[in-house]
Order: sequence, then structure tokens, then C-alpha cells
Amino acid sequence: MRPPAHSVELTQVTEWENGAVRAVQDSLAAEEPLEIRVNGAPVTVTMRTPGHDLELAAGFLFTEGIIEENSEIYNMRVAGQEASKKSNLVEVDLKSRPFAVENLQRNFFAASSCGICGKASIEAIRRRGLLPPDREFHVDPRILCGLPEKIRSRQAVFDRTGGLHAAALFNAMGDLLVLREDIGRHNAVDKVVGWAIGEGRLPLSRSILMVSGRGGFEIAQKAMAAGVPVMASVSAPSSLAVKLARELGMTLIGFLRGERFVVYSGEFRCLS
Amino acid sequence: MRPPAHSVELTQVTEWENGAVRAVQDSLAAEEPLEIRVNGAPVTVTMRTPGHDLELAAGFLFTEGIIEENSEIYNMRVAGQEASKKSNLVEVDLKSRPFAVENLQRNFFAASSCGICGKASIEAIRRRGLLPPDREFHVDPRILCGLPEKIRSRQAVFDRTGGLHAAALFNAMGDLLVLREDIGRHNAVDKVVGWAIGEGRLPLSRSILMVSGRGGFEIAQKAMAAGVPVMASVSAPSSLAVKLARELGMTLIGFLRGERFVVYSGEFRCLS
Repeated sequence: MRPPAHSVELTQVTEWENGAVRAVQDSLAAEEPLEIRVNGAPVTVTMRTPGHDLELAAGFLFTEGIIEENSEIYNMRVAGQEASKKSNLVEVDLKSRPFAVENLQRNFFAASSCGICGKASIEAIRRRGLLPPDREFHVDPRILCGLPEKIRSRQAVFDRTGGLHAAALFNAMGDLLVLREDIGRHNAVDKVVGWAIGEGRLPLSRSILMVSGRGGFEIAQKAMAAGVPVMASVSAPSSLAVKLARELGMTLIGFLRGERFVVYSGEFRCLS
Repeated sequence: MRPPAHSVELTQVTEWENGAVRAVQDSLAAEEPLEIRVNGAPVTVTMRTPGHDLELAAGFLFTEGIIEENSEIYNMRVAGQEASKKSNLVEVDLKSRPFAVENLQRNFFAASSCGICGKASIEAIRRRGLLPPDREFHVDPRILCGLPEKIRSRQAVFDRTGGLHAAALFNAMGDLLVLREDIGRHNAVDKVVGWAIGEGRLPLSRSILMVSGRGGFEIAQKAMAAGVPVMASVSAPSSLAVKLARELGMTLIGFLRGERFVVYSGEFRCLS
């Protein structure tokens, strides 16, 4: 699979192997800042791998609770693009809602009366009024075990750079719907969600989201925001991701490797 | 090695292995938000693994350019701690400098006249007036190859949870000076730098910083801020980390595994 333009950069490096030194050409995962502006105001700058930037912006606005549906976006464009130059700015115009930058910080700056804590962070997400993920969705363990290989065989940039995270969406049959790669795991997830927004597929109530690496709180809350019923990763989740998944009823799977996985929450969707 | 209190949480999970289902107890890497306040104003909330929180706060303030030396810190404390409860707030009082929260964003919101881009991000770091890392520091390739195993043998929490990043500091002989673990790679680096601040060891001009996973821009700029001459990781660096290392003269090593590594910048410190 051919990676998107600008997502890989070539460079000359020096390899040392058991005393032997040689010059080689290496492919690097590209990393550049992307600024997202909403109604003219800068909202965030994220270090991302260029490519699928409109998806990234749409997914970010959605998973962070700035928009609740695609129809709120009046217009969205990669700005200031010249033919010879990559652009690192996406401008979004929202239709009606007066936009408050403060909203953005509510997840992380969530504090309860007893101070800032994981419980307050979970409460802040609960207050967004997200629907609980589909309880009828079911996935067969054997299908789960097949997902990592499907990601590996499609990870275009990772093969060349060894430096990217992947997020992928599958249906209950294990068919790959979309895969996105990025230097930031959260960006890869936002790109996947942004793709789903554009396709009119939200909420993702019949899908499995699989991410490379670890499953932390931030990733779990993005999955939850998109209505994903089953989230899986190849490595361990964090304590707070597990608490969030349990409180909001999402199936959370870790250590999905070979013929084995661990279910941290919502066993009923895959083990009954 | 015994991990710090609160850095691991136990929970009941369900394991599926080749059709067999069993309940097991699992150790999770703890993740909780930490708020850092400077002179009473909230500066950041980071999702971190509890433990070494004062180091994390001091390291963060230093690597993000809010303080330039330890003596600027008048007082620093874990706040609101009750005997029965973990605290998620560190309060820092700086001595003289009027503190501007805007400073914090300068790295990521860095924009040049031609727009936001990696080049502007590097320029913003250059403007901080960091000293170039020590050019006389030299490390033997065989010593580099021994570092990953030294980290593995000391990674207390990772062994149990599979879910933590590590950052470790070594001298030129390959002796481990300090190792910190965290759910966030950047936090692990900040904890290491915070340790060095407390020990009066800055700048780290005679040290190697090794991080688990990938070496992105954010990690490279933190290493640079601390004066580290050699940074190594087990996986790939990003394009922007390489550009930063080359422009500011830091040795950047990736894919440090077994008897092999790749040098992306500053070959003279290890290959001559």
C-alpha cells in the first residue's frame, strides 16, 4: 500500500552493526505541527504526520466534544496552501454554535469538589451525554485474533519507518473499514473518526476500533465519544481507561496477540 | 525493584486463550491527571502515572522553558494531600519572575511569517538560547548496545503491567544514573530531568538519555533543553526530531537493539 504524500521523509543516516559502519538511506515518519482554527480562533496545535488533515480536524472536534454532528460544520478547508508547500493549517467554520475555546479543556481540567482526579475526568465525559455503546454488538474471539495481522499487512508507512501508530476500524466480521497512521496515537484515532464523520457512519455502534500500542484514557474517551462498542489494543490499557470503559459500558481488550487476549471490561460482547 | 506506591493498580480481568476463558488478576499501570499550578495559576494538567510528582513538575517547568534553573523555585509541594488519599496537585511558587502562562504555548504555537511549521517550531526552541550539547562527550558503541538490557532489568512497573514508558539516564561508562516510568513518555523524561534538577546535575552534558519507544520532537526538545548530548531510543525517531537534533547538534540514535543502531545526527560522539 502506498502511503500518502508527505507522510514519509527520506534522509541519509549512519548504521552501526557489530562494529561495521555504513551510510544508508532511511525513511522517517514525517512530523509537522498542525494548527486547527475554529471560526477564526486557534483551538489546538498538534504534532501530526501530514495526510488526511481534514479528517484529523473533524475527528478532533468531534471526539473532544466541540461538535456533536457533522452538520454543525459549515465549511472546512486546508488553508494557505501553495502548490509548492505543505499546509499546516486547517480552518473550520461552525454553523450556529458560538464556540468557546474553554470547552476544549473541560476533559483534562475537570475537577470535582474534592479536587482534580480520574473520577472527575470520567464524570466530565459522562456529562457530555454520550450514548452507551451498543449492547447488542457481538464479536467472535477468533475474529478478534485476526485483526492485528490485518493491520500489519496494511500499514504502509510503518513498514518503512517503524515509527508510526495505527488506528483501524473493523466490522463484526473482521473486515477492515479504514486504517490511519500517525506519529501520535490520538491523531490516528481522530483521523479514523473524522473519516467516519465524512462517511456519515457515526455513531460507530457496529464497529471495533483497534489501536497499536497502549490504550490510555485519552484514546478510550475518543472511542467512547464515537460510540465504539469494542476497543482493542496490542498492549496494556491504563487503570483510568479501564475505569472509564467499565463505567460507560465499552468493551476494552488488551494484549491482543496470537491466540490470546485479555478482556478488561464488557466481556459479554465477545465471551458469551 | 519495587515500583513506587500508587503506580500499579490491581484488577480482575478475563483472559481468553485459544478458546479457554479464565478469570485472572491483572496489574494495571496507574493513570491519573496531575495539575501543576505556578504562583497559583493552573499551567497544565497531564495524565501521568502517580509517583515522583515533584520531579515531574520541576522537570516539566524546566524542559518547557518556564524556569532556567532550580534556584528560581522558591517552594514546591504536593498540595491538599490527606493521609488516605492520593493528591493530584502540585503547587509551585517561583521566586521573582512574573509568570506568563502564554510562554508555555510558545513551542507548539510557534509560527513564522510564512505560517506554522516544523521549521518555526525548531526556531522557537533555538530562541530559548539553549547551549549546544557538549561536543567533547563521547560514548562507545558497545556501551550503547548494553543500555536497553539495563533498562529492562530495572523496569519495575513495566514488568508487571506491560503498559509503561521508561526514560533513563546513563553516564559514558553505561552506568545507570536514574530510571523513571510513566504512562506518558514525555512525563518519564520530565521526571528524569526533574530528578537531575534536584540533584544539581543540570545541564546533563555528560549523559545519555534513553527512552523506550519512539523519539519524537517533543522528547528531543526536552532532552535538548536539559543539555543532553546523546539521546537514544529503541524505535524510530520522527523527521522533526531528526531536524531538531541536526540543527542544534545533539546526537540522535534510533533502533538501538542487539548489536545494531542507527545514528541520525551527531555521529562524531559515537562513531569516531
